[in-house]
Amino acid sequence: MSIMTMAQSQVKYVFYFIGDGMGVNQVNVTETYLAALKGRIGFEPILMSSLPVVGLVNTYSGTNGVTDSAAGGTALATGSKTKNGALGLTVDLQNDVQSVASWAKDTGAAVGVATSVAVDHATPAAFYAHVPKRQMYYEIGKQLIASGYDYFGGSDFHKANEKPEEGSLYEQAAKAGYTIAKGYNDYMKKARTAGKMILLQSDEANSKLDHDRIPYAIDRKKGDLTLEEITRAGINFLSRQQKNGFFLMVEGGMIDYACHRNDIGTVINEVLDMDKAIKVAYEFYSQHPDETIIIISADHETGGLVMGKGPYELHTDLLRFQKMSKPEFQRHLNDLYKKHPKRFNWTLVEKELKAQFGFGDGITLTDEQTARLKKRWTAIEDAVKDNGKVNERINDLGETACRIISEAAMISWASGGHSNGYVPIYAIGPGTEVFQGRIDNIEIAPAIGKITGWKKQ
Amino acid sequence: MSIMTMAQSQVKYVFYFIGDGMGVNQVNVTETYLAALKGRIGFEPILMSSLPVVGLVNTYSGTNGVTDSAAGGTALATGSKTKNGALGLTVDLQNDVQSVASWAKDTGAAVGVATSVAVDHATPAAFYAHVPKRQMYYEIGKQLIASGYDYFGGSDFHKANEKPEEGSLYEQAAKAGYTIAKGYNDYMKKARTAGKMILLQSDEANSKLDHDRIPYAIDRKKGDLTLEEITRAGINFLSRQQKNGFFLMVEGGMIDYACHRNDIGTVINEVLDMDKAIKVAYEFYSQHPDETIIIISADHETGGLVMGKGPYELHTDLLRFQKMSKPEFQRHLNDLYKKHPKRFNWTLVEKELKAQFGFGDGITLTDEQTARLKKRWTAIEDAVKDNGKVNERINDLGETACRIISEAAMISWASGGHSNGYVPIYAIGPGTEVFQGRIDNIEIAPAIGKITGWKKQ
Repeated sequence: MSIMTMAQSQVKYVFYFIGDGMGVNQVNVTETYLAALKGRIGFEPILMSSLPVVGLVNTYSGTNGVTDSAAGGTALATGSKTKNGALGLTVDLQNDVQSVASWAKDTGAAVGVATSVAVDHATPAAFYAHVPKRQMYYEIGKQLIASGYDYFGGSDFHKANEKPEEGSLYEQAAKAGYTIAKGYNDYMKKARTAGKMILLQSDEANSKLDHDRIPYAIDRKKGDLTLEEITRAGINFLSRQQKNGFFLMVEGGMIDYACHRNDIGTVINEVLDMDKAIKVAYEFYSQHPDETIIIISADHETGGLVMGKGPYELHTDLLRFQKMSKPEFQRHLNDLYKKHPKRFNWTLVEKELKAQFGFGDGITLTDEQTARLKKRWTAIEDAVKDNGKVNERINDLGETACRIISEAAMISWASGGHSNGYVPIYAIGPGTEVFQGRIDNIEIAPAIGKITGWKKQ
Repeated sequence: MSIMTMAQSQVKYVFYFIGDGMGVNQVNVTETYLAALKGRIGFEPILMSSLPVVGLVNTYSGTNGVTDSAAGGTALATGSKTKNGALGLTVDLQNDVQSVASWAKDTGAAVGVATSVAVDHATPAAFYAHVPKRQMYYEIGKQLIASGYDYFGGSDFHKANEKPEEGSLYEQAAKAGYTIAKGYNDYMKKARTAGKMILLQSDEANSKLDHDRIPYAIDRKKGDLTLEEITRAGINFLSRQQKNGFFLMVEGGMIDYACHRNDIGTVINEVLDMDKAIKVAYEFYSQHPDETIIIISADHETGGLVMGKGPYELHTDLLRFQKMSKPEFQRHLNDLYKKHPKRFNWTLVEKELKAQFGFGDGITLTDEQTARLKKRWTAIEDAVKDNGKVNERINDLGETACRIISEAAMISWASGGHSNGYVPIYAIGPGTEVFQGRIDNIEIAPAIGKITGWKKQ
């Protein structure tokens, strides 16, 4: 980190974007893909990486060489490394550590915490919760309400109804002064009169997606809640209290999900989708350049993504043939099976592999790849005959399809877990030159505290 | 790249270090290992990454999403992307492109080109040669001599005697005014009276290593030529002409070799060894801070190195048990076989795996890993019986040993080839803030030209 510029007390609007699982290669492959789409070898810069400040961030946790999202989120939110799995606690789990969101709140700024996944997921929770285990969703939900932050956005709570005797978390939130909006249109209706706001997606969407996330960008349909809308709503809501400024954290939470599944087309679309949300913040920045900073970073790399498999070539352009995320493809095949169990045959599946992944169309498969897909199909056929675990077998086929499209594009994955690779930090605004260079993830929150004056070191 | 600072005409000493194959993870794993050696999770900064300027560099070539060292070297040396395999030519191979070394020479600065591999290898050759194929070693050697640069350092030429009728390249070099020194002591004897200098390693070392490289740092024995010495000799030799300054390129060429072999312990030692060479340049910088710049970058990433294999842990500390590079271990086993063909049994091999890799000692093997090693041993036994391809079978065992120590440390490799991952750029000195941020590899040479005034854009 280069020499710290003295805090500019003018800075009062802070955007803190976190791409969950977004290592440096996740951004690099996205830009490489955009250039390939235009028939070029090279990269087509996206907004985040075009910001003037660029740095490299180390992500290890207090206990592990490879961090999880709870410890990674805690480091980014509070400036303290902790134990993998823990949120907002010291590494020995004995003491709470406070986040930059709480520092902002303490000085009278408005605070928002938003994500494309559940509002009680590890990354957003790191900004308001203090629990030894990230899976304590109900407790985290209660701490969300107790935080008193002005705005939350995301898919839903994971365990809203765990203790019926206490009332649902929705009821508890309402009692604490929160208005709950379901979808962007509902937000627009309710925002004007709301004191505090929790924006979630529709019940229908949540029931389809296990309350765990909004739809992937690659799967998006008209009316789906988007990260861009969640960000726009956040700015809109927090801007009502101009006086003391605001802090808004926005997580692109599904980059990580797609990387865990080694689902490359979906990863790229999620990075691009977070970039769209950043554009909304950038519009705000453009209107208040002396008072606003935007910081974009990540909690860790996921998947061990590598561009290249040995031969000195890439074919990222082929990823344009992927039309659905892996889980959506699996859901789609299962729906087809349910609708037409008797017509669910290899011809139909082959047609779907062509339509959704371009196999046998834009993407020529090797004999070995075709054989792998057929082997997966045979397992489905067997399952159909037994009338048994069709769903699981179809998932295996989705996995193989994703693996093959990565192979075709010459993309490698080390695993379905996290790595200790660098994540990027990008920034713009007064004082953000401190994020230049190579930094540790615990340096970011204190630097924001210093730039804004929200926390004196 | 941030706003270009106006050229400081004072800058007249330029060090340009290139870590062949050194992606961002190669540096990250080295620093992670150093911390692990001290019993810490985290990173222990080395010199290069502690320099004030840090950036990310894209490496794709003019023709390929994944570059080779010739096109990568050409981009770093000349500021032009070219075809994979080509050196110092435009992408259509029709025109020469000139390097920053030649710009320096043209303005009267002294010029040195040095490496830990052969002086006619792709990276050094990119600074003086113009050939469509990097394997044209004899032609490259002739162009080295014709360059008239003041200092070359490296292991040897690959094809010094290809055309006996023309005399060897050593003879041709001597005719052109070059003194050839074999080893550092020989350099010390000859330097004072030499007009131009080519420093190579001893004939004995070259015959052992196929003229292709100096010994790996991990294998180094007393008296071996080192990259630090090659750098020190370069500074010493070029400093004699203080008037117009100098340009010295130093390649850590064997990081790439070790990455191609997925030989992690050797990779880390090579990165540390290049850092030692950088320290020598840094000493010079400390004495001439207003007139010196040091730039460190890389031509591409090799191996698709990832820290992490899925579980959220690393065990890089275990890499301390590796005592030899993969080729040295193979040579060592072959020597043992030659000396004691009748006592060359599993007990002896097991003892060597323990001594050189810590297997069964500091590193506990899984049953599966032991079985893999034994399977390799059985192939050697069969080869011994046939009295046939023992050497090749022993190499297979070395490969398995390297694979297993990577597994134990939780290090993944995507391939034995290059990837399109970011490489780092580190720098210090007046005007080097232009290397901050995310840049393309073709931006570096022109920026050096501008900072020094060697080339006006």
